Amino acid sequence: MINEKINLFNFQTPLQQMNLRINNKNLFMKRDDLINFYFGGNKVRKYEYILREILEKKIEKIITFGSIHSNHVGITAAVAAHFNLECDIIILLDRNDKNIALENQHEGNSSLLGLFNTNRYYCYRDEAYNYISNHLELQQKQKKDYYFVPGGGHTALGALGYIDALKEIVEQCKNNNIEVDAIFLPTGTGTTQAGLIYGKKLLNFSGNIFGITVARSASRCKHEIFNILNELNRILDSTIQFTTEDIVVLEDYMKPYGQIDNEIIGTIKELAASDAVLLDPIYNGKAFAAMKKMLIQNQFEEYRNILYLNTGGLPNIFIKKFLRGLI
Amino acid sequence: MINEKINLFNFQTPLQQMNLRINNKNLFMKRDDLINFYFGGNKVRKYEYILREILEKKIEKIITFGSIHSNHVGITAAVAAHFNLECDIIILLDRNDKNIALENQHEGNSSLLGLFNTNRYYCYRDEAYNYISNHLELQQKQKKDYYFVPGGGHTALGALGYIDALKEIVEQCKNNNIEVDAIFLPTGTGTTQAGLIYGKKLLNFSGNIFGITVARSASRCKHEIFNILNELNRILDSTIQFTTEDIVVLEDYMKPYGQIDNEIIGTIKELAASDAVLLDPIYNGKAFAAMKKMLIQNQFEEYRNILYLNTGGLPNIFIKKFLRGLI
Repeated sequence: MINEKINLFNFQTPLQQMNLRINNKNLFMKRDDLINFYFGGNKVRKYEYILREILEKKIEKIITFGSIHSNHVGITAAVAAHFNLECDIIILLDRNDKNIALENQHEGNSSLLGLFNTNRYYCYRDEAYNYISNHLELQQKQKKDYYFVPGGGHTALGALGYIDALKEIVEQCKNNNIEVDAIFLPTGTGTTQAGLIYGKKLLNFSGNIFGITVARSASRCKHEIFNILNELNRILDSTIQFTTEDIVVLEDYMKPYGQIDNEIIGTIKELAASDAVLLDPIYNGKAFAAMKKMLIQNQFEEYRNILYLNTGGLPNIFIKKFLRGLI
Repeated sequence: MINEKINLFNFQTPLQQMNLRINNKNLFMKRDDLINFYFGGNKVRKYEYILREILEKKIEKIITFGSIHSNHVGITAAVAAHFNLECDIIILLDRNDKNIALENQHEGNSSLLGLFNTNRYYCYRDEAYNYISNHLELQQKQKKDYYFVPGGGHTALGALGYIDALKEIVEQCKNNNIEVDAIFLPTGTGTTQAGLIYGKKLLNFSGNIFGITVARSASRCKHEIFNILNELNRILDSTIQFTTEDIVVLEDYMKPYGQIDNEIIGTIKELAASDAVLLDPIYNGKAFAAMKKMLIQNQFEEYRNILYLNTGGLPNIFIKKFLRGLI
């Protein structure tokens, strides 16, 4: 069953050794940002499984939501166009954004939504729950059949994509004689991390998985990940046991979602120079900067070969508040 | 000798079959936009050979120029940072740009130059020759050793990268039982096309190479390509004969460099929906739109399996005049 997905891309994303050295660790990067579907990224792997259900059920409309920086929203629009599905996108706006005019709020991911035929709706983040509920209720009243995808593609089906990704990583490591003992990644809703954690047990992968939260509190992320792990057991008809120790989400250096500071900008510039790898400032720049700081502080002394999972999101490198920060 | 290059990336870029059908042709795309160095694209392959000479000669400074949309300029900055070379970038501005303030001119590629330590200079396009000459003279007076890379990386060394690319294409086609009978690509300065044309003869590749000019007149492109082909013979100590028939540059649907119209926007949207492939509006969107129009008009009736070479440049999808064109 786990192999029954809709292929949205057909090659193994590169696993590359980095020139950058941090505290003498060997660093590797899994380049899921290079997935050749739209702008790539982890959301594509998630949709390979979410789509299976949508297409099997012959549902002709997807509804989802996310912030203007959301990679998930961009991929959703691309997936819907690709499979001729109707698509409602609800964009969550922050009240403290100074430019209230919509055209000024659009940048990075959201500025590309016009590439696709989507119905776009807007609401403030603090009104999201009511707004989305009303939107879905209206569909039901109109007897419209739809598939609701939670923000970030946060579903157990989506997590299946990262069991596959771990398989790919294990195979690539084996072929290149690399023994990865830790995987770091940015954790948003937790789906990607849940897939990796589940995969670790399923595949007897010896490395440890460390999520770095980019938005929510670590405790909320852990709770969500735990739920997804249980859901994965249900879907896969399995009974793998998970304890709280299996789920490590780091938040020591957490900054509010979307905040870009000199630490993030400096890290992005450093990696651009050392490896010509670009990171987005919202997700990967932030998580990589936090990982770097922790490695320098000897927090992971026992690990030698560290793999960073680049989850994509490069459209966000073009947002104004980042570009203004480049000297 | 041809293999003595500096590797800037280490995997074969995907060759994918497109869902999009134009006049019943089988369409394939070579995804050089996914090269994992900076934002990818054909300029990376060029620098693999240009760099060899720079590093062999132990030159510590690169000087180049290009427009604000130039992919070459972005890659040059990344290459220089990667190898710790000093880097002077001369940006050519158009006089008819309404926003004369530099911060407003920067977008797409040029907005990312701040990621790297480069010395940036600006001049109007019509003063470029004098400005660049003076700049180089000043270096000589100051007894500075430098390597001048022409705009677009337009050198025979650069063209070597596309002999390699054709080898890769031939190998991938063979492995996948595809018999490509025509390759289309956007032609700027002509280096990439020259490499492919030279490679065609060198490798006995049976397909034909069709460049679509995105800036200069076809006759100027042909002249430049012819010069590069001769230079390649010199470098490779060979005597392959080329006639004007070997060099096909199409300009029937040429629009001024940088112009974005509904035909280009429509083509980019069409491909985003059919294949989740994004094209930049300055180079590939323009060339692909022209190819599409010609295929529809039955201009290439004898060809069945057509490969389009995506030369990269996706930062330009974020330029304002394109985003404003998305409905």
